[in-house]
Amino acid sequence: MWYRRAVSTSIALPSALARELGAIVGAEGVVSAPAALAVYECDGYTLERAVPQLVVLPRSTAEVAAVVRAAWRAGVPFVPRGAGTGLSGGCLAAPAPLVVCTSRMRSIRAVDLPNRRVITEAGVVNAEVTRVVRPAGLQYVPDPSSQNACTIGGNIAENSGGPHTLKYGVTTNHVLGVEMVLPDGEVVTLGDAIDDGLGYDLTGVVCGAEGTMGIVTAATLRLVSLPEGVTTMLAIFATVAEATATVSAIIAAGIVPAALEMMDRTIVAAVEAAYRFGFPTDAGAVLIIEIDGAAAGLAATAACIEALCRTHGAEDVRRAADEAERAALWKSRKRAFGAVGRLSPSYCTQDGVVPRTRLPEILARIESAGARHRLRIGNVFHAGDGNIHPIVLYDERDVDEAARALAAGREILAACVELGGSVTGEHGIGVEKMQELGLSFGPDDLALMQRVRAVFDPEGRANPGKIFPTPGICVEQRAPRRQAAL
Amino acid sequence: MWYRRAVSTSIALPSALARELGAIVGAEGVVSAPAALAVYECDGYTLERAVPQLVVLPRSTAEVAAVVRAAWRAGVPFVPRGAGTGLSGGCLAAPAPLVVCTSRMRSIRAVDLPNRRVITEAGVVNAEVTRVVRPAGLQYVPDPSSQNACTIGGNIAENSGGPHTLKYGVTTNHVLGVEMVLPDGEVVTLGDAIDDGLGYDLTGVVCGAEGTMGIVTAATLRLVSLPEGVTTMLAIFATVAEATATVSAIIAAGIVPAALEMMDRTIVAAVEAAYRFGFPTDAGAVLIIEIDGAAAGLAATAACIEALCRTHGAEDVRRAADEAERAALWKSRKRAFGAVGRLSPSYCTQDGVVPRTRLPEILARIESAGARHRLRIGNVFHAGDGNIHPIVLYDERDVDEAARALAAGREILAACVELGGSVTGEHGIGVEKMQELGLSFGPDDLALMQRVRAVFDPEGRANPGKIFPTPGICVEQRAPRRQAAL
Repeated sequence: MWYRRAVSTSIALPSALARELGAIVGAEGVVSAPAALAVYECDGYTLERAVPQLVVLPRSTAEVAAVVRAAWRAGVPFVPRGAGTGLSGGCLAAPAPLVVCTSRMRSIRAVDLPNRRVITEAGVVNAEVTRVVRPAGLQYVPDPSSQNACTIGGNIAENSGGPHTLKYGVTTNHVLGVEMVLPDGEVVTLGDAIDDGLGYDLTGVVCGAEGTMGIVTAATLRLVSLPEGVTTMLAIFATVAEATATVSAIIAAGIVPAALEMMDRTIVAAVEAAYRFGFPTDAGAVLIIEIDGAAAGLAATAACIEALCRTHGAEDVRRAADEAERAALWKSRKRAFGAVGRLSPSYCTQDGVVPRTRLPEILARIESAGARHRLRIGNVFHAGDGNIHPIVLYDERDVDEAARALAAGREILAACVELGGSVTGEHGIGVEKMQELGLSFGPDDLALMQRVRAVFDPEGRANPGKIFPTPGICVEQRAPRRQAAL
Repeated sequence: MWYRRAVSTSIALPSALARELGAIVGAEGVVSAPAALAVYECDGYTLERAVPQLVVLPRSTAEVAAVVRAAWRAGVPFVPRGAGTGLSGGCLAAPAPLVVCTSRMRSIRAVDLPNRRVITEAGVVNAEVTRVVRPAGLQYVPDPSSQNACTIGGNIAENSGGPHTLKYGVTTNHVLGVEMVLPDGEVVTLGDAIDDGLGYDLTGVVCGAEGTMGIVTAATLRLVSLPEGVTTMLAIFATVAEATATVSAIIAAGIVPAALEMMDRTIVAAVEAAYRFGFPTDAGAVLIIEIDGAAAGLAATAACIEALCRTHGAEDVRRAADEAERAALWKSRKRAFGAVGRLSPSYCTQDGVVPRTRLPEILARIESAGARHRLRIGNVFHAGDGNIHPIVLYDERDVDEAARALAAGREILAACVELGGSVTGEHGIGVEKMQELGLSFGPDDLALMQRVRAVFDPEGRANPGKIFPTPGICVEQRAPRRQAAL
């Protein structure tokens, strides 16, 4: 079936190379049995799948470099992979047959508390960083929903966000520098161990490049203080429109919450069925609002937010009474995608962005796309960022319904661009949105980006077939057709 | 005298091109008389000077594009220039003979308060942005000391910092996208009007590229709320060591002040002589500490900071009683460099960075460099960032003393690198630090950067002869020798 397409890796991996790689990473670091390789056939994006011909799991930067150098000599491209929790097919093993997975590189090389930074290897799990530095009152801020599984290397590839992006910024704002293996096996260090801005900002280019420039093997991460106090609130509304108006009102009042998340009726029902948190299942929408900072200021800010919620029609506003209630609330939010599995045999999560003020319009467009294509669509998203996540429910056994789900998703992304937004907030382009990239960028914009990529990867060996709809680079053209506009 | 060297522009500007450019920008937009051109012979960095052959001041992006296109056809490179307040010679008219100055492009194209962003042309003065949005409770955060003169275009070229960098980040953290004229005259739009991270982060590469990729003509800037409350404090210490220990203690306590600035005895004496603020001239060092945020939390935080200051030996801690006192305190800080003019016929401000915890060591190294070279050196700097600004006092009429001043500056920069820091925190490389760049980057790092530059400017027409010690790019080599280290 087309919507669960098996994609060919198309490039053969010579057996001599497989032997050479095995010698580098050791028997424990090689996955070659068909059943074991099937684990690597997709990431969180499951519409396309491709079983790699070989997966290697190096233990060190030197091993990554040796693996990549051997592949370079053999003319074989590779796919970098972290924990495989991406949602746009960025680590799909196609057309490259070789997956280089950094998940065994789990050491934290240095912790420098006075200067608030840590050097981790790429395979360190996101949540592990904060676990290590929390006793010193510090944290690594970016917190994707998959933070208990996803790795620092994957976070850098995708420039991951999370609920706390609104106040604290995304991965690129917290990465001071990276160690990276280039596609010919050379090891470079980009950025700096301190936040000095010396030279061109190449670290920023690598963050979000989805592995198309090389394999990040280690990173220097910025740490920030744990807030003195945190207040987490739940506001319940009869309609999505009231909830989005409240989001705008909170921001307009000069409050920047640490997180400002919305779930609509469909999602609340799914979450409640799965976790029994106590959400009112007749609510049209709920907001999870978290504020943090100096403890002395929190009560006044919370009171102000509560007043704004009620002014804009909230039926109820509750505060988490203690850390346990707060943790339960976040668990319900972070597991919302999983809970949706109860509603429908299949679902497809979209990721788009609109300016915060256009949220009511995009939500209306999502609703009408659902009606037009006869589909249920739930919404759970980072409202403060204008980063929407419509979840299109369908049954993959019904080919017509699956086709309508895909069409609805594409229409919603086009509407995001039309409203001044874009086709991805945090999940990347991968293979899923290569065509949609053309909604925001002209051929010449894309050619400029590909020329930058070619600086790192002139032969297209690192994760080819991702991000760019056409593989070639066009050196002659340059003038993008995209204009600045609010 | 070598230390005030007149540099040749070395490339001739054909008179036919001069006429063509005049037709594009109009008579008011051309500076060609020798006396008028002399105004453009240097920026804040005065050790080298070069009188341009022609300065043009276009009024629009279309005019910038037409000017650059004409120069491209004539084979003449150009120097982009904002207000000329840079401190490292980044807009020195050498070897390129043509200066393209964006200071007449002063319009604010759009103000979008609900989504907190503004599109300004490159010539808008930094302080003007906040002046326009302040009635709505918003501000543009980056605040270089020259903010009443410097322009947004120049800030982007230098990726400018300021006292409030510690809490809020530098220019690149507040620029969502740029409109830029490439060296062949094509207009590109990089980044996006919203903060979505779509595609490679090319805006980040342009921020801090010192005009070596093209001419930024407009930018979409992020606005943030004015803090509800601000408390500004002055702490007085007998020794610099006590003051730096206090800086570390404040950060270690989990407090991130909006600003944390230090001035030593030499600078305090100069500032007091100039402005009579009331600083105790027998103090070894003073700290200016500013905290902002929710009003309810400020008093407790200020009390905590005061206690930390006293624990670490502060002789006195004062709080600005009102906005007038606060403004006077900042005026004294921001004009410190000017006040130094009273102390010495000439001075050279250095700019380096060390990890915050190494401040005591670098200050000792600065002191010993001063003693060894028989020079007075004052210190005024962004202590919270570890961004030092030693001011080496000398008399330019004394050739031997000038040579010693230059040597001391170079030794201090080398010490910064040795202590894990770098040779510039915020003033850029320009022409001043091209040689020092090699202290942090190997030839292959530099080649990688030059290849990225070549994507935008393959023929080296935009501000050639800046940043990179050797002009050529080396496509064969790539492995930098720099290693990640804390």
